[in-house]
Amino acid sequence: MKITIIGATGMAGSALVNEALRRGHQVTALARSEEKLAKLPTDNPALTTHVQGAFTLSTADLQATDVVIDAFATAPSLAFQHVDLAAHLVAQLRETTSPRLVFILGAGSLQTGDDHHLFVDDIAKDPNAASFISVPQNQLKELNFLRDVDNVNWVGVSPAANFHPGDAVPALLGTDELLVNAQQESGTSAGTMAVAILDEIEQPQHHQVRFTVADK
Amino acid sequence: MKITIIGATGMAGSALVNEALRRGHQVTALARSEEKLAKLPTDNPALTTHVQGAFTLSTADLQATDVVIDAFATAPSLAFQHVDLAAHLVAQLRETTSPRLVFILGAGSLQTGDDHHLFVDDIAKDPNAASFISVPQNQLKELNFLRDVDNVNWVGVSPAANFHPGDAVPALLGTDELLVNAQQESGTSAGTMAVAILDEIEQPQHHQVRFTVADK
Repeated sequence: MKITIIGATGMAGSALVNEALRRGHQVTALARSEEKLAKLPTDNPALTTHVQGAFTLSTADLQATDVVIDAFATAPSLAFQHVDLAAHLVAQLRETTSPRLVFILGAGSLQTGDDHHLFVDDIAKDPNAASFISVPQNQLKELNFLRDVDNVNWVGVSPAANFHPGDAVPALLGTDELLVNAQQESGTSAGTMAVAILDEIEQPQHHQVRFTVADK
Repeated sequence: MKITIIGATGMAGSALVNEALRRGHQVTALARSEEKLAKLPTDNPALTTHVQGAFTLSTADLQATDVVIDAFATAPSLAFQHVDLAAHLVAQLRETTSPRLVFILGAGSLQTGDDHHLFVDDIAKDPNAASFISVPQNQLKELNFLRDVDNVNWVGVSPAANFHPGDAVPALLGTDELLVNAQQESGTSAGTMAVAILDEIEQPQHHQVRFTVADK
């Protein structure tokens, strides 16, 4: 398939580029830094890189591909752009079924505990929360926005609490509850996330909902 | 003040143009039909008309004015554009305080009855609802979206159940409950709406919330 990855040079995005290439897909990697794009495996003829801001993607740009993965990341001070980019992509693709949009959301919008409270409320108790809480807060707003979208082919994916670099390991899958493995760890490597997303792209199991993946 | 009105030729928009001019404001009227714009009081030097789709409004366009009123209307088949236009305007104005954005929302997002259910659920019981229910449904989604926006200067306004043409009459004001007057009627004329909005623009009483107005 033709897969476009927004934020392709980040932790999640670069793992996705590698996994998609490994599976033989045609990959278009978008990012704002030419220098960072050059560190992707650009010797692979299946990879195309573009320096392009995602807010300039038109309907025609998007419809040139089968799947668009939004792995956008930005500074906490601009975290509202998570919402605005989702709204931009959705607005370009109203009343279409292709491309499929895959949004990487944070763990904050997952539920946890016996009372099923939002995990973002736990994150907010971190002594350093003020410096980064805007990111999970806005990724929750992004999911709230997406849940009202019924005429675009979208799916959301959340990692577990600790989203970290690393190769894929066997995975746990869930829907809206924060996952914890048998060792009581709640983590997802970028590799595990990439495998789960490529599995979902190749064999769709979720439609207009968010699912979650964790390291087993 | 400089006031820009999106959807200026519609029932709400044209009443707003007249009321804003009557109060001595500088008005820019935007609409997609040049023919309909020509029916506004274009002999008034305080009125400027532009044929312009609202989705093309840039940050610079918007910041040339003090207030932008979104009185956009469209066909029920395109009702999702209510959400998309709100998202577009918000994205252009993140982390600003001016212009103020005023959104005319439907009555469907108001609560009614002892159980405070959404009025859109009552609207859905109309035998002809299938032909128009997408409009109140998407105006509810628009309000849901706006309620997550905390870094733009916005306010929403809902009419009562029957939003109809007509001159201003004395008004009832509320917040999130559908209003009914002493005669058990729930209606708002375009003139009453225009007066309530211009009052709110001149003397702000609401910030990042929705209020409602009805004919007394």
